[in-house]
Amino acid sequence: MTNRLDVPAVLTALTLEEKASLLDGSDFWHTQPVERLGVPAIMVTDGPHGLRKQAQESDHLGLTASVPATCFPPAAGLASTWDTGLLHRVGSALAAECRASGVSVLLGPGVNMKRTPLCGRNFEYFSEDPLLAGELAVALVDGIQENDVGTSLKHFAANNQETDRMTVSADVDERTLREIYLPAFERVVTRAQPWTVMCSYNRINGVYASEDPWLLTDVLRGDWGFDGLVVSDWGAVNAREAAVAAGLDLEMPSSGGGGTRRILDAVAAGQLSEEDVDRAVTRVLTLVDRSLPALAEGGSFDVDAHHALAREAAVASAVLLKNEGGLLPLDPSAGGAIAVIGEFARSPRFQGAGSSQVNPTRVDSALDALRAALEGRREVTFAAGFVVESESADPALIAEAVRAAAAAEVAVVFLGLPPSYESEGYDRAHMNLPAHQLELLRAVAGANPNVVVVLSNGSVVSVADWQDDARALLEGWLLGQAGGSATADLLLGAANPSGRLAETIPVRYEDNPALGAFPGEHGHVRYGEGLLIGYRWYDAHRLPVAYPFGHGLSYTTFAYDDLSVTAEGDTVEVRLTVTNTGGHAGRETVQVYVTDPEATVYRPDQELRAFATVTLEPGLSAPVSLTLDRRAFAFWHVAAGDWVVEGGVFGVRVGASSRDIRGEATVELKGDAITPPVTTESTVDAWLAHPSGGEWLRGALGDHGFGALLFDERNGQMLRAIPLQRLSRFPGFPITEADVEAAVTRLN
Amino acid sequence: MTNRLDVPAVLTALTLEEKASLLDGSDFWHTQPVERLGVPAIMVTDGPHGLRKQAQESDHLGLTASVPATCFPPAAGLASTWDTGLLHRVGSALAAECRASGVSVLLGPGVNMKRTPLCGRNFEYFSEDPLLAGELAVALVDGIQENDVGTSLKHFAANNQETDRMTVSADVDERTLREIYLPAFERVVTRAQPWTVMCSYNRINGVYASEDPWLLTDVLRGDWGFDGLVVSDWGAVNAREAAVAAGLDLEMPSSGGGGTRRILDAVAAGQLSEEDVDRAVTRVLTLVDRSLPALAEGGSFDVDAHHALAREAAVASAVLLKNEGGLLPLDPSAGGAIAVIGEFARSPRFQGAGSSQVNPTRVDSALDALRAALEGRREVTFAAGFVVESESADPALIAEAVRAAAAAEVAVVFLGLPPSYESEGYDRAHMNLPAHQLELLRAVAGANPNVVVVLSNGSVVSVADWQDDARALLEGWLLGQAGGSATADLLLGAANPSGRLAETIPVRYEDNPALGAFPGEHGHVRYGEGLLIGYRWYDAHRLPVAYPFGHGLSYTTFAYDDLSVTAEGDTVEVRLTVTNTGGHAGRETVQVYVTDPEATVYRPDQELRAFATVTLEPGLSAPVSLTLDRRAFAFWHVAAGDWVVEGGVFGVRVGASSRDIRGEATVELKGDAITPPVTTESTVDAWLAHPSGGEWLRGALGDHGFGALLFDERNGQMLRAIPLQRLSRFPGFPITEADVEAAVTRLN
Repeated sequence: MTNRLDVPAVLTALTLEEKASLLDGSDFWHTQPVERLGVPAIMVTDGPHGLRKQAQESDHLGLTASVPATCFPPAAGLASTWDTGLLHRVGSALAAECRASGVSVLLGPGVNMKRTPLCGRNFEYFSEDPLLAGELAVALVDGIQENDVGTSLKHFAANNQETDRMTVSADVDERTLREIYLPAFERVVTRAQPWTVMCSYNRINGVYASEDPWLLTDVLRGDWGFDGLVVSDWGAVNAREAAVAAGLDLEMPSSGGGGTRRILDAVAAGQLSEEDVDRAVTRVLTLVDRSLPALAEGGSFDVDAHHALAREAAVASAVLLKNEGGLLPLDPSAGGAIAVIGEFARSPRFQGAGSSQVNPTRVDSALDALRAALEGRREVTFAAGFVVESESADPALIAEAVRAAAAAEVAVVFLGLPPSYESEGYDRAHMNLPAHQLELLRAVAGANPNVVVVLSNGSVVSVADWQDDARALLEGWLLGQAGGSATADLLLGAANPSGRLAETIPVRYEDNPALGAFPGEHGHVRYGEGLLIGYRWYDAHRLPVAYPFGHGLSYTTFAYDDLSVTAEGDTVEVRLTVTNTGGHAGRETVQVYVTDPEATVYRPDQELRAFATVTLEPGLSAPVSLTLDRRAFAFWHVAAGDWVVEGGVFGVRVGASSRDIRGEATVELKGDAITPPVTTESTVDAWLAHPSGGEWLRGALGDHGFGALLFDERNGQMLRAIPLQRLSRFPGFPITEADVEAAVTRLN
Repeated sequence: MTNRLDVPAVLTALTLEEKASLLDGSDFWHTQPVERLGVPAIMVTDGPHGLRKQAQESDHLGLTASVPATCFPPAAGLASTWDTGLLHRVGSALAAECRASGVSVLLGPGVNMKRTPLCGRNFEYFSEDPLLAGELAVALVDGIQENDVGTSLKHFAANNQETDRMTVSADVDERTLREIYLPAFERVVTRAQPWTVMCSYNRINGVYASEDPWLLTDVLRGDWGFDGLVVSDWGAVNAREAAVAAGLDLEMPSSGGGGTRRILDAVAAGQLSEEDVDRAVTRVLTLVDRSLPALAEGGSFDVDAHHALAREAAVASAVLLKNEGGLLPLDPSAGGAIAVIGEFARSPRFQGAGSSQVNPTRVDSALDALRAALEGRREVTFAAGFVVESESADPALIAEAVRAAAAAEVAVVFLGLPPSYESEGYDRAHMNLPAHQLELLRAVAGANPNVVVVLSNGSVVSVADWQDDARALLEGWLLGQAGGSATADLLLGAANPSGRLAETIPVRYEDNPALGAFPGEHGHVRYGEGLLIGYRWYDAHRLPVAYPFGHGLSYTTFAYDDLSVTAEGDTVEVRLTVTNTGGHAGRETVQVYVTDPEATVYRPDQELRAFATVTLEPGLSAPVSLTLDRRAFAFWHVAAGDWVVEGGVFGVRVGASSRDIRGEATVELKGDAITPPVTTESTVDAWLAHPSGGEWLRGALGDHGFGALLFDERNGQMLRAIPLQRLSRFPGFPITEADVEAAVTRLN
């Protein structure tokens, strides 16, 4: 392989035509080479929970089989681990597989927010909370990039649905963008510097992400200091010259020369400068240069070790939602058969469809894993119960399942979403499991009261209307290729469940914040709920939920003690002691939510601002310490164009979920001094609140006539809400319009 | 007085300076006269539920006492009548009072929607539903204007809160404006042609209503055919020259010459043409001309007759929310005392504060009215219970009330909002009654199980947490000067309650659609809930409510039979028979809601599209017939810029409230033919849906390669959602970008 590139020297040696060509892919997965200058093509491929490198180079749309790779749990699963250390190790493993395949950039992770439960691609995203998504993605990116393989942070930004994803405008106000839809990107950029950021297909407030200079340059590079390359999502470029000007460096896949031509035409017409082109080319060359060490060194990976890691990740991903009477874990040595029911036990659903679909090195089924684990100890029977992609119940299969359940001591029923229900490229039509699966469940529950349900679904499903038929409920999300063995570990107590919900499970679809404003119409989708997605919405509206954000049971229990919260400047330390008070070793996830009871802007009831996991043997305690920086208390102040901490008292809640708060303390912060300037539109109240403006106004008005009226407690309230300048035009008012204008000039 | 004006002749004779001066008020309440040409000043004054003509001409801000006038129930009360005939008669009475005072234009009615329960001015507005508000306002305007007195339809538009009302921008999408916030204005303009429309203080999507040419000219005059004058709300003008250009004719109050100067400067600078000025002046002169007949004729009115009408209106306005065990009506001849409790029984709260506050000709208290009606028949005791504007309970007053209740057979407790809780100029802080009133209620209910609560409140209050303490609940809203006697009529059965809720009473404040997006911040309020205000929201989210829109009990009962729904073209006739099945004469309000189960846009679950009232003696039946025109089925099609009926099946529900549906039928309409054009942004699916576009594309793609992929049921769905032009740039795609552009040109 080549040595490192001398990027400035190469740039100088390139012709304008070569430069423009470097801003386009050479095919579906490669950059353009410039052989005469020793610039190789590098390969980028889909991810992000496993490598998806096309086996056939000639497959233009990239939809056929890929080389075998380890399929880790997709983001919906990994997010439920809340375990940055684990995600870091998964990242390292992904990098090793990339290096073994000569892949320089893995196209992920995706940190878009789960605005609606119906987004078809939710399985590829982490959470409804930007802090959780961001922290996990930082760990994954670090794990990959430490091994000289790049990442592509996607889909930037506000790509929260598949319907009309290539054209729809996400109409969303700036504070909501800054506080909800951008912070996960911001966190990864500022903390992990991904080699690339992938712009999304959609428009934001009418402007294509691929040609939005505010997004790709002002925010990404200006505010956050991004120094990598921006690549288009595949086919996201609209007007290539506008995209270059906005800060989109690399168009993928190859435009067949069309993009290059448009760039050259724009330079010739003076719409783009050669400096614009050079800036983008420098980023492409820098990306190529960064890729060379790993390409030179190559690598290999241990298929078995990666499978074991996938199993560990799957164990940590599953969330035990309920466990009445301690039905789980099942005793491997107890008498009585275990009836395993549901096609998913035999044919696991472990990942989603679309560009992220991995060709796994192997696949464990739960049925095989349970049989192997219980071999010679406890009887395992099986009934498929249903045909996955069928639209209707099969009475014979249900009857077989009922017989198996009736003859067993416990029935473990594997339900889930058929692959056709959720995929990249389209959104779900509803939030329900197939009716025939629920018909099966009812029948099984009628035959045996000891029912465990194991769910396989990439995005949230309704449970409220059927979960009474199950005494225990394990939400597996999509668990990757080792999900089957991991599920067996959890069911049999070889592992202790520790996953926590990274998204709320609402009671009903109609409870969700995007109702009526999803998927939009006529090219626009209104983010009407503003900041209030996920638990922020359910909390604000005091809505009951099936299971709250952050929830997850264990086979053991934990106590929280000794909470202390101390501030130094605007940084707050939260300390507590966690004790394993039960009978199993286990992992606890401590969550810190901040509240701001008094503010000049609307604030959500509580927001996740820190979390930590701690693993403890029974009876043992450990100190847990978490730091809240000033951002944990700040909001995006639209008028100031900055993050502002308003001085005052904040609440700091420590809990095992967003609705299982174990302790709360308050902390007082000095905050930032904000004196809103007076303008010609300022109300009398705003003038009175201004230190010198108020003094001037009181003097000018006096205590009689208008002054008396304005300061009258009852009638004055209405008058003081009028802009001073408007009042100054009222007949007889003692201050003129010119006086107001002069005062504004003087005071600002 | 003068004869009629020759408007064109006067216009020709005016100097430019005189013209500009005519576009400004001469003081707080008068237009400018031009004495040399016989143009008098005319007077406009506040309303709209009674005349508020300042007694002192020198009162610049107009906040002191006004001449006595009949105070009818404010709009929150009148709206609950659902009775257009009654509102027409109230309008006639208002006109008579204007004529008697030489007032040419009454500044009302206000038809803004109740977006949030907390808007301080909700008592001046009719409803959360635009059809109901519009129909009632049409009747009121007709009643006034038939008597040659003008009205001012206000506040145009999207003025749905008092907080920052003079500067805040209501950020709201066009479909929501067209379907929710504008239709009441549209209905009044197109059906009743108010002499004037008053523009609101606020901005809409960043543009001041006072200088928005889209609002004041394109929509108001272009789309709706308004031919009257647009006047500013008092102090709503920002840049006077921009306001003239946008279509704001008359600035009020007098700008002290500043506005006139700016107009003249703008004409001199060529920013305004003299034609712009002439257009506005013509409208001012026309308004003056229209006013002359009534000014010449003058008039007088019968104070007693108007009080009687106010009492009739108050009777029809009160809504009987609950009546357990038929506690009401109280038998005037039964034994046992009636304990009347609550200061509001003695000192009624019957109107709201601000510009609409009338100086009533007299005021009836419920206490006096009950005593008079029961004189010699049944004992009435009284205890004040609380001090209205107090912040805390008075134990002595409560003890006195408890003693009175314990000694009585029934306790009638008058609760309500203190005047300081709701007013023009500021919004409410919460939705609750004062805590000390509820403390009183609990104590009274503990002493006597037969509790009737009578409420006085201009905007909705929470009832869910205390209504179990009352067996009967009469929502009086604000009932005007005869509210006390009307309440006695209703309590004693001299009149039968017939009011219906014009707004939902939610269970909790947190259920309301504007939560988190009210009152906005930093100059903007996001109408995030879109179409879903009021019952549209509670229905969509399947939320329980305390009392639904349209609800109201009677002392009798009604049956609905013989529903038939027939279509002729896009007009639908709804016929049914209503029977009084109870023991009292009564008035029933039949409500028709339309549903559109399948549509290409989001549609509310159901929308009120017609209503009718019918008064029946016990045992009698009457046929009721209602017409639904095409607009009842249409939605605002943003892309088409027009109202569109999508062909298909609609549901027609007939009910006694939005949640008491008594019958439902379906009707199939042909609808409008809409063929969305294909553009360069159209997806493959959109191309395939286009008659000739689909044919071309199928031919061009063929059955192999990409064609096979695109038409593949599974993978194809994702690909077909991609704009064809983007696909055309993919390597190897059989259609070029130029082909797509050519096809777009050819097909459109």
